[in-house]
Amino acid sequence: MTESAYRTIRLHALGDILREHRRSRRNFRALVEGDVCYTYEQFDVRVNRLANLLRAKGMRKGERLLWMGQNSHRLLECLLAAAKLGAICCPANWRMSESEMAAVIEDFAPHVIIWQEAEVGDTVRAARGKVKDEHCWIQHDSDGPDSYEALLAIQSDRDDEERIEPELPVLAVYTAAFGGRPSAALITHSAVMYQNLIIGRVQGVDESSVNLNSGPMCHIATLMTTLAVFHHGGCNAFIARMNAEDVLKCIEKERVTHAFLPPPTIEQIRAINAEGKYDVSSCWATADAQEYNGNPMVAPASSPWGRNFGGYGQTEVMGMFSMRAFGGSTMAGRPISMVQVRIVDETGQDVPPGETGEIVVRGALVMSGYFDRDRPGEENETRSRDGWHHTNDLGKREEDGSLVFVGPKTTIIKSAAENVYPAEVENCLRTHPAVADVCVIGVPDPKWEQSVKAVVVLRSDASATPEELIEHCKARIASYKKPRFVDFADALPKAGFVVDRKAVDAAFGGGGYPKAH
Amino acid sequence: MTESAYRTIRLHALGDILREHRRSRRNFRALVEGDVCYTYEQFDVRVNRLANLLRAKGMRKGERLLWMGQNSHRLLECLLAAAKLGAICCPANWRMSESEMAAVIEDFAPHVIIWQEAEVGDTVRAARGKVKDEHCWIQHDSDGPDSYEALLAIQSDRDDEERIEPELPVLAVYTAAFGGRPSAALITHSAVMYQNLIIGRVQGVDESSVNLNSGPMCHIATLMTTLAVFHHGGCNAFIARMNAEDVLKCIEKERVTHAFLPPPTIEQIRAINAEGKYDVSSCWATADAQEYNGNPMVAPASSPWGRNFGGYGQTEVMGMFSMRAFGGSTMAGRPISMVQVRIVDETGQDVPPGETGEIVVRGALVMSGYFDRDRPGEENETRSRDGWHHTNDLGKREEDGSLVFVGPKTTIIKSAAENVYPAEVENCLRTHPAVADVCVIGVPDPKWEQSVKAVVVLRSDASATPEELIEHCKARIASYKKPRFVDFADALPKAGFVVDRKAVDAAFGGGGYPKAH
Repeated sequence: MTESAYRTIRLHALGDILREHRRSRRNFRALVEGDVCYTYEQFDVRVNRLANLLRAKGMRKGERLLWMGQNSHRLLECLLAAAKLGAICCPANWRMSESEMAAVIEDFAPHVIIWQEAEVGDTVRAARGKVKDEHCWIQHDSDGPDSYEALLAIQSDRDDEERIEPELPVLAVYTAAFGGRPSAALITHSAVMYQNLIIGRVQGVDESSVNLNSGPMCHIATLMTTLAVFHHGGCNAFIARMNAEDVLKCIEKERVTHAFLPPPTIEQIRAINAEGKYDVSSCWATADAQEYNGNPMVAPASSPWGRNFGGYGQTEVMGMFSMRAFGGSTMAGRPISMVQVRIVDETGQDVPPGETGEIVVRGALVMSGYFDRDRPGEENETRSRDGWHHTNDLGKREEDGSLVFVGPKTTIIKSAAENVYPAEVENCLRTHPAVADVCVIGVPDPKWEQSVKAVVVLRSDASATPEELIEHCKARIASYKKPRFVDFADALPKAGFVVDRKAVDAAFGGGGYPKAH
Repeated sequence: MTESAYRTIRLHALGDILREHRRSRRNFRALVEGDVCYTYEQFDVRVNRLANLLRAKGMRKGERLLWMGQNSHRLLECLLAAAKLGAICCPANWRMSESEMAAVIEDFAPHVIIWQEAEVGDTVRAARGKVKDEHCWIQHDSDGPDSYEALLAIQSDRDDEERIEPELPVLAVYTAAFGGRPSAALITHSAVMYQNLIIGRVQGVDESSVNLNSGPMCHIATLMTTLAVFHHGGCNAFIARMNAEDVLKCIEKERVTHAFLPPPTIEQIRAINAEGKYDVSSCWATADAQEYNGNPMVAPASSPWGRNFGGYGQTEVMGMFSMRAFGGSTMAGRPISMVQVRIVDETGQDVPPGETGEIVVRGALVMSGYFDRDRPGEENETRSRDGWHHTNDLGKREEDGSLVFVGPKTTIIKSAAENVYPAEVENCLRTHPAVADVCVIGVPDPKWEQSVKAVVVLRSDASATPEELIEHCKARIASYKKPRFVDFADALPKAGFVVDRKAVDAAFGGGGYPKAH
């Protein structure tokens, strides 16, 4: 009897954080978008109305809400309303094609879909035409009588304060299609809260922080900071999508302290603001502040993140789970305190420091599984083995315990019975002083199935022979992994920021990367 | 099936933090005491041996281990071994009398008792003579064949890696005898881990921190930092008990960065080190650093704690749960993000900002209950009402959401049907510029049962009449709370650092404080 009283008293989930902000920071700014500004009291009132609306639409604990729009304060309201209901909110990627969108709707089976007309409306309508008519659709950017705002206005703002288990999932994020189709990683309240505390410290977030949601909110890299700022009672500002001029205006107007800005946006900002048109001093003390130079998660220069930028992670583990800010000599740093990390071989045994294996992880930041991937042979089985989540990434430990991310495990070359990971061979070649860039492919071999070939871009001021490079590898990695052939190129084709492996493979006689087992 | 696979993968408890430190910080110093120094690898090996020893002694999940000794690295080993077993470790107060100690043994019913000869042996033996012979006793400060070290040495260091639910209690701390006898608050793994992250940030703890366990480790105020330093992979140094010379030696030798030092020890340190005999620069950049001046939890001056010292909490909520470091205008600051806090009247309704009521709290830092206080009318029922833990403390909210600790609720004066809280009246009188110190008592009143009397110490440079002081209160608190009488005194008798209410009551005609209902 009394044990369960204290069990209930101990429950604390994202909705409870909002409730306490309403008491402790009633008049603090919580949400800012254009001319709209809501305090934490107003935020909580709106979330209560939305929760009551969703409940009136029949949405219950464990059910799902899909956001099909761009960045908006309403997306954070949806996440918090889902949190108060014990439901799950998924911010879909608004850049999907209509068939991708339809596939997500069918896969995620949301009870309610909040959608947007601006920029996304045509695709949404097309996707809607492809799926069964079994969802409740609410448009958020309309002033019609059935719009989000109109429906909210007529709801009660009563908070029934249902106690929510923090082990329930609250956030779903679709991740890379390792299995051929994207899957939604389900993130629990407690994973979000632990990460909020960690990111809050690392990025120097407190109640005075103003975070510009400029990165896409369907990505964990953006959400990590959004949620940490919410958690600490700071202010989240929103722009619908990344746009350098909008970013600059918002930084000046809202005195932004945190943002997500990829290098291309930084370059645009540099160009637009070369003569100081906008006051960005709240974000960067100097125009050449370290984080201005390509750190996509902009945090104060004095924060642990600003001083020791770098980390490693994945969506399935609530974003970064290893960070330089917690020590270590590598870019990935040391694992954070709420997870355990091992480097294992194909049989699940630990490999010694310095040797490459798969990074596996367990602990409080790991997802509670992919949504609806529970059938035999599906992702929830293949990715969870022996009590560890398998990242599908290769890594190694330095002697001092630091983690190194080597590359994806799913891109492999088959040489006889052995799997060769191109990323590992490339990492080895990059340690040669003459190598500027490199891509390793597998060329057909009648005897060994594939042979390893390295396509190398040399530094303009350096030279090396194929034999030298092969010897370099032989001294450092297992002999069967060393390139048998080395070709030279002036540059490698890119897809975005990364090497386009398929194009290299096609141009240099490769046989394709076999599917990883 | 797969859901439960990820449920197991998500489990993370204190033992898992140690396991990861062994991988990530293998050669880092973990424990230092005198000439003994153990790395995290050695710490984990010792904890595994101890866990296997306890298991061999028949100790199982949910069972209890009692530490009856002074500060020691072995106490932290006991806590981590209990953590790996899913058991509970209680550091008893070694200053207890033999009958208090016997009462704790009978109350806590520990499977294993680790005890100490030095300074505590006589009391332990006397207590042992008073209780049933049903415990396993192990002496930790001996080199005999049955000693802690000898028994550890012959155990396997195998780690069976049992997965432990973080909602299980791991730490038991006896707290003030509100109900007439001390009760053991049971603190869960997750409460400790959340608090570790919060204290780690507030006190600036990282893997380079060296914390001197100088405060008594039976107190949550010491353990809060001990555990945060462990959590972040720093080094814990131990001295058996508070001693200014030992503190100074250890600060110099181990380059201590954090410590627990009450004002009297600080005064002794000032006297001993007036001429800089010991190098204390690792702890204090300057001799006049803020934290040198009476802040009992010594953290780097640049940490949030160093910059904004202050907070409020209690053992039942894993120490502090409101802190100035998270904002606010009062010493208690704002509640931390992992709890909700309300100020309620006798009926459990919120009182408005500025008005005094009982502080109630719920959330992830609250204990899972007192050990064995589950019978009707016992503490687990009386302290948990309407889904909130009742702190038995009075407080109020400022308009800006800051929390004010007013005083204990259990000390009351009965005036007719009303309860008057002396702390509230004292707080009001302290805002009068002429008042240096004050204690409010209840004098017998034939009509009203008790009347309120204030015993006031005036500032040496100020004066005030009883009428002025009564008017001061009348303008600020309910009329029935204002003093009817005011006496003046040169000083108030103290018990340690606080006013000795009983002595004031006896000296100024009081009728005692009735038992709170």
